[in-house]
Amino acid sequence: MRLTLAEPSYLKESISIISELVSEAKFTITKDAIELIAMDPANVAMVVFKLFSSCFTEYDIKEDTSIAINLGNLKQVLRRVTANDMLTLELEKNKLKLEFTGSTKRTFHLPILEIEEKEQKVPELTFPVTITCSPSVFTSAIEDADIVAESVTFVVEKGKFMINASGDLSDAAIEIPASDSVKIETGEEVIKSKYSIEYLKKMVAGSKISNEVSIQFNKDYPLKLSFKEVDKVLLSFILAPRVEND
Amino acid sequence: MRLTLAEPSYLKESISIISELVSEAKFTITKDAIELIAMDPANVAMVVFKLFSSCFTEYDIKEDTSIAINLGNLKQVLRRVTANDMLTLELEKNKLKLEFTGSTKRTFHLPILEIEEKEQKVPELTFPVTITCSPSVFTSAIEDADIVAESVTFVVEKGKFMINASGDLSDAAIEIPASDSVKIETGEEVIKSKYSIEYLKKMVAGSKISNEVSIQFNKDYPLKLSFKEVDKVLLSFILAPRVEND
Amino acid sequence: MRLTLAEPSYLKESISIISELVSEAKFTITKDAIELIAMDPANVAMVVFKLFSSCFTEYDIKEDTSIAINLGNLKQVLRRVTANDMLTLELEKNKLKLEFTGSTKRTFHLPILEIEEKEQKVPELTFPVTITCSPSVFTSAIEDADIVAESVTFVVEKGKFMINASGDLSDAAIEIPASDSVKIETGEEVIKSKYSIEYLKKMVAGSKISNEVSIQFNKDYPLKLSFKEVDKVLLSFILAPRVEND
Repeated sequence: MRLTLAEPSYLKESISIISELVSEAKFTITKDAIELIAMDPANVAMVVFKLFSSCFTEYDIKEDTSIAINLGNLKQVLRRVTANDMLTLELEKNKLKLEFTGSTKRTFHLPILEIEEKEQKVPELTFPVTITCSPSVFTSAIEDADIVAESVTFVVEKGKFMINASGDLSDAAIEIPASDSVKIETGEEVIKSKYSIEYLKKMVAGSKISNEVSIQFNKDYPLKLSFKEVDKVLLSFILAPRVEND
Repeated sequence: MRLTLAEPSYLKESISIISELVSEAKFTITKDAIELIAMDPANVAMVVFKLFSSCFTEYDIKEDTSIAINLGNLKQVLRRVTANDMLTLELEKNKLKLEFTGSTKRTFHLPILEIEEKEQKVPELTFPVTITCSPSVFTSAIEDADIVAESVTFVVEKGKFMINASGDLSDAAIEIPASDSVKIETGEEVIKSKYSIEYLKKMVAGSKISNEVSIQFNKDYPLKLSFKEVDKVLLSFILAPRVEND
Repeated sequence: MRLTLAEPSYLKESISIISELVSEAKFTITKDAIELIAMDPANVAMVVFKLFSSCFTEYDIKEDTSIAINLGNLKQVLRRVTANDMLTLELEKNKLKLEFTGSTKRTFHLPILEIEEKEQKVPELTFPVTITCSPSVFTSAIEDADIVAESVTFVVEKGKFMINASGDLSDAAIEIPASDSVKIETGEEVIKSKYSIEYLKKMVAGSKISNEVSIQFNKDYPLKLSFKEVDKVLLSFILAPRVEND
């Protein structure tokens, strides 16, 4: 296996974000993409990451490969990559070899872990609501809510997306109307669901890799946040709802 | 009551500064201004804040109103306001409602506190010394003094303002002569007084709202620091002196 | 003694770097230079600092003088100097007087310490290897190595400088080939030696005073790092090797 990225930033940013939720994970490398599907340790959130082969200047694999890596370590190494470096990934001596080629050549080896875990599968979910907007609008709303509470209620109603949070004494409400830059697809019904702000704050960091986020949810049902660049990268998160007697 | 600010930064910056000295305080809203007069918990410093009605694009009050608020909470909410937001203050359901109107509409409610405290009054003080200068010159002198000691002696003598600090082993002396940008109004006498650096460091943050500070004091007598923009905002601090046997 | 610097930044930056390794030290002031030679408390590293008299706009000493100072205190005072200040050093009342002259005049006095310590001497060392390069290339390599290990092995071989680090499970290798901007002077033999990354990280901060670093070492022998500006300043570090059974 030998994979070369001329622009390593999608990988760098994505791993940095994912490592806040998951500490060890298995990457599957097929002829189409490098893919990671992982649950956070509390089983509340799932991460799905795909870096497509079309991102790579060299993408040479003999067979599908699966390697488990400590994401904290991988993040630390990827932090050292600069915009001028080419990054090559290889397997060598049962380790993952990362080679940075710029004005100097720098090589890192990271141990491959043995993870005895059942294959994660992305659940099939159907969503009556899809909101597409600039990540900054959504991130700002989550940060607003974070001031007053630990969970947030998403409500969609008649072309408006509302984000409400109530603390012991204070509350916050953010109203995002449909507009040229905010698309809200939904039916007639008012749909409402509650999610953890702590998780959402980690997930909105996905805005580093895309200038659009898609937000999908249903009543007391998981939320799906997706950040993507077509043919390049996909980073999505599925977050369990908090039900009222939480 | 309905008050709207097109430029919320005076309120935002002032509350951020005041909250370092006072955690809860009562605002009095009259037809002229929003006003706050409060002592710090150690009874060493008083804050006087006025945001004049001429700052507001909408200033609608039926009668004088007084509301007590936790300044830490208020600061956190005001931090979320951006330069593009209009800020409207209202009373609703016995709470203070803050509405930010920009590309989205964001609404916060903060609880109104019951403070059983006697009305604070600004003491009548007369000062033989008034120094007016750029806040950066004064702030820098306080930071210099902070390296060597916990208190600082202000001295005015023949057109010179001196700031002296002596620690156990080290000392610092800053000399600010009268100049085009530093006005020193005083009599013949040498006047000297000592103040806490810890408090002064919090007070000089007032430089965020004005590009001039006025410094007034007397021998072993309170200090008054004032930051203002005419017809807009006034933030002043009164600080008790430290007497020699402190 | 009266010494005036129109550009105090060499002194400011150097003391800031040295104070990370040594907390108290003796300066020797001769007609040529201010000089400091000191060992770190663990006796692993030596610092040699020289600020030449040609750096000064006024350099008036009657006789060679030696003064011991707490470098942490000196660093704090020098942090307060700005690019527009002239800095004058004098002895006054058995203290070191530092006077900053800019738009205001600021004076600090620092106590002179009594250090009962034998005179430090720079050991005579001979090096078969000298590498000269941009400090950023070298600093970046040390930071790379820091991710995986606590010590680093320097290897010079046939026109290549290699920096290798091995942790329990991960490793890093940086290859710096000779080039227009990297000069490698050495003989035929492969030369290899191991040093502490913790110390190296403090020493590479010397890059603030020079845009070139010289790296000299030998097999299981001390390392010498030198940062200099001709006729102005010299900051060099000697670091004991870590031998294999460390």
